[in-house]
Amino acid sequence: MSKKKHHNGQWEETPKLQIIPLGGLEKIGMNITAFRYEDSIIVVDLGMSFPTDDMLGVDLVIPDITYLLENKELVRGIFITHGHEDHIGAIPYIIGQLGAPLYATRLTMGIIEHKLEEHLLLESTERHVVQFGDRIGAGAFSVEYIRTNHSIVDAAALAITSPAGTVVHTGDFKVDYTPVFGDPIDLQRFAQIGKEGVLALLCDSTNAERPGFTASEKTVGHTFDQLFQECLDKRIIVATFASNVDRVQQIINSASKFGRKVVVEGRSMINIITIAQELGCIRIPDNTIIDVEQLKNYPENKTVIITTGSQGENMAALSRMATGQHRKITIGQGDTVILSSHPIPGNEKAVMSVINDLLLKGADVISQDVHVSGHACQEDIKLIYTLVQPQFAVPVHGEYKHLIAQGKLATELGIPKKNVFILRSGEVLELNRFGAQISQDHVTVGEVLVDGKGVGDVGNAVLRDRQHLSESGIVIACAVVDKETGELIGEPEIESRGFVYMREANELIDDCRDLVREELAHALDKGIRDTNKLRGILRDELAGFLWRRTERRPIILSMIMDVRA
Amino acid sequence: MSKKKHHNGQWEETPKLQIIPLGGLEKIGMNITAFRYEDSIIVVDLGMSFPTDDMLGVDLVIPDITYLLENKELVRGIFITHGHEDHIGAIPYIIGQLGAPLYATRLTMGIIEHKLEEHLLLESTERHVVQFGDRIGAGAFSVEYIRTNHSIVDAAALAITSPAGTVVHTGDFKVDYTPVFGDPIDLQRFAQIGKEGVLALLCDSTNAERPGFTASEKTVGHTFDQLFQECLDKRIIVATFASNVDRVQQIINSASKFGRKVVVEGRSMINIITIAQELGCIRIPDNTIIDVEQLKNYPENKTVIITTGSQGENMAALSRMATGQHRKITIGQGDTVILSSHPIPGNEKAVMSVINDLLLKGADVISQDVHVSGHACQEDIKLIYTLVQPQFAVPVHGEYKHLIAQGKLATELGIPKKNVFILRSGEVLELNRFGAQISQDHVTVGEVLVDGKGVGDVGNAVLRDRQHLSESGIVIACAVVDKETGELIGEPEIESRGFVYMREANELIDDCRDLVREELAHALDKGIRDTNKLRGILRDELAGFLWRRTERRPIILSMIMDVRA
Repeated sequence: MSKKKHHNGQWEETPKLQIIPLGGLEKIGMNITAFRYEDSIIVVDLGMSFPTDDMLGVDLVIPDITYLLENKELVRGIFITHGHEDHIGAIPYIIGQLGAPLYATRLTMGIIEHKLEEHLLLESTERHVVQFGDRIGAGAFSVEYIRTNHSIVDAAALAITSPAGTVVHTGDFKVDYTPVFGDPIDLQRFAQIGKEGVLALLCDSTNAERPGFTASEKTVGHTFDQLFQECLDKRIIVATFASNVDRVQQIINSASKFGRKVVVEGRSMINIITIAQELGCIRIPDNTIIDVEQLKNYPENKTVIITTGSQGENMAALSRMATGQHRKITIGQGDTVILSSHPIPGNEKAVMSVINDLLLKGADVISQDVHVSGHACQEDIKLIYTLVQPQFAVPVHGEYKHLIAQGKLATELGIPKKNVFILRSGEVLELNRFGAQISQDHVTVGEVLVDGKGVGDVGNAVLRDRQHLSESGIVIACAVVDKETGELIGEPEIESRGFVYMREANELIDDCRDLVREELAHALDKGIRDTNKLRGILRDELAGFLWRRTERRPIILSMIMDVRA
Repeated sequence: MSKKKHHNGQWEETPKLQIIPLGGLEKIGMNITAFRYEDSIIVVDLGMSFPTDDMLGVDLVIPDITYLLENKELVRGIFITHGHEDHIGAIPYIIGQLGAPLYATRLTMGIIEHKLEEHLLLESTERHVVQFGDRIGAGAFSVEYIRTNHSIVDAAALAITSPAGTVVHTGDFKVDYTPVFGDPIDLQRFAQIGKEGVLALLCDSTNAERPGFTASEKTVGHTFDQLFQECLDKRIIVATFASNVDRVQQIINSASKFGRKVVVEGRSMINIITIAQELGCIRIPDNTIIDVEQLKNYPENKTVIITTGSQGENMAALSRMATGQHRKITIGQGDTVILSSHPIPGNEKAVMSVINDLLLKGADVISQDVHVSGHACQEDIKLIYTLVQPQFAVPVHGEYKHLIAQGKLATELGIPKKNVFILRSGEVLELNRFGAQISQDHVTVGEVLVDGKGVGDVGNAVLRDRQHLSESGIVIACAVVDKETGELIGEPEIESRGFVYMREANELIDDCRDLVREELAHALDKGIRDTNKLRGILRDELAGFLWRRTERRPIILSMIMDVRA
């Protein structure tokens, strides 16, 4: 993607801003971008991503921050745009190593602090709650927080100013003229900054393939009112994203209008609602929320259950209800379940499975048109470009196809193709008002896997073994030998896990034992004593034997115990 | 779902037809239905399904046919509706046990014979190729093949007549007034049979949630012509389903019009096209198909590559091209890739990943509106109901939500709710013209897992172990003891797979070895000699130790080798 130099001497002579994405450009998740101007670095977002299907047993994925650690003393601040996991989830794993101050708006900081507390990092982390309009100095940079709208309250765009010029980073955003909580996106400020001159726009690409405008969150509130009106004789269960405080607000509003009590189910949702309530980001009328234990004291059609699990997550409350494994809530005829969400790519099948289970229990299920996106569609993106009028366009946040789609929009709006940069993580975009180019230099980037307490100790070799184990299991052969005499002591043992049901495979196991005994005796007879050599012989012979018998290739582990060792 | 008896004495006295789904009603795939009238049983379809995500390492899933084997001498014939895997895939695993004759139309039988040949079952299997309009006697039954349309050529509906009345089973179908190959669905025959009186309709529910009509396959041909016109200077790669012969025909037609040579890539597609060509189900102009090796002899924009992999399957040709692993075809700028398909639920993410990879290589990708469904939408379903006018409706082929949706359509068309039966596999629907009810009796049903040569030897215990292994791996501790003296001989050994990278975990492994040595010595000192007891102690101690150190729970396998054994 490196482009030819197209600039003049002035470009060479003028210091450049570097934009260095350290994650988040190859797939959705793990957002983190470094901005560097001479001896100052700032970081925007510290997100995690969920493991892909091939990362077996991995809990979460965080970015490799080698580049930041190598330049640790230059890092002046970490600026968070909003409180979603793909923008804040890596903080507890990274903040201790970086030691730079953390900036975020009120609700975002509330959610971060909850995480830091769980990781016993609250005291040791320097934190600053930012108001919209605040401008924070950080080395050569100053960073202004601009109000936006998104599927979580208190989302911000950033205007990042350095001597090389101003860059606007939208964060994840939508344009909502009638938001549920707080004010609409500060379009005036976008316009004003644009008028003053913007070097580059880093804009959310998630919905860059979708034509039109993204509907207001409030439209979902009207839908809830209608559905509540149609379900007067039913209990209502609504599943949505734990962090969508406005959505929960609107469900509570409808419940309140229709005189229903509300139960909130699912640990992550209870956490976020509690934080939002403490910070005044959600208004819950008195005597509306009841405990799940109190459900039985009210007529079913006077209750609403708000729950997690709208993505079909196995362990979430809705899945447990659907499969009859929830200890306190039983789904049946008389229930209407509303999925106020849209399946995230990859979750379609899980969501469908939950819907089928709910239908089987006799519930009505409503899953269409009870959701709006939190991301800007094409016309919204065009609006921001037209207000900001950047010299360079750097689409961010999305898969490659989304970045490409936004790049096309930018050129349609008159930005020359050579001024549109589709970056990849680890690339260094250098720019000033005389030009821009992708540097020859790359910085280290990568994914660090977190599994239990282990950060980074599960790598490719371990994942390959897990994949192999998951497909074919393992067969272990163990024998005791006397290396001095070259004798086999006692009987070899054969064990297996995930290969075949042992109790019904006696013959196969007996044959394995015979094979091990014979091959080992044969090798010892030939004078072979080296443990690794003996292990290798057994492994190969067993692998061949099992393939012929079963057409499966389990991992084979052979152990030779020396009685004289 | 059992319904109250609502019929009179005549119902009791008149022999009943039993409809017994043995699979295919809980999810899409593994279609198999038994029909029984007194001492005659016929079977419609013998399908497989693909393993679900929790069936680790399983190759495919076939139905449990215990019920058929228990009544083997009553089974008079196996009637196949069309050649898709979910209707024929289990044949090679089951036909040998059943021994009943197999009936299918020309292309369907061609595909089945290819399978039987691979399994060395061709000679031993009694087979009959059926013409549309043929009526086959099978005990108390006679079965008529009726032409339908579907995403594979030669699909059929069945009119199954017994003394209890006629049942129409649509198979998978669509209504295509202008099919690419052969004639439209035989609506006149549906009408005629309906006029004569139909007891029950078993109708495809796949698209029962979709309003409107399903478009003709020919509309995709027009789209190809347009796209070929727009891509005059590009090489074109089209990915579609291997078995969609009509789709391949249309791509070849467009290629021929535009003077392009065609390469077919992907083993399964080559197989089916070869069979279709031998049977005259596809017409390929002379000198159109070239070998992949000849590609280099033609200008890129004078070639088309038709390939498998439209569902993002890992090992399919398109994925290998997208990731640069295809040995003969390299994707780059100048290529237009058309995905002529729609992601099957569960494959969305894989498809998106292939699209991103193709874009990264510089190709243009077209994935919208180059596909039509092979299944009837709501208005088509209503047409069939209105022609057939069944007394009872039994929605088939679909997930539960699809069956429910068709049930609603049936009641809208005037079929009383009590005459609509949403069955589950293993239920027995008994019916004659005086009534219908779900019997108290259930027959054995289930999923049999095929892994390598093993059919049914991978069960829940093995799958649970594979799941556990895939998440956390395995740690194996082995020690040699002298049970007579109660001595530990030599050093215990610790091995692991899929747990942690051993070379970087020396300290952890050393600590494990110390723990095993100490705990074992301690237990032996206390006089414990029972191997299972010693193994249990080691397992528990190691599990606790590893959890505290890593917060992971690998499978622990402890082995005690007795030097005196």
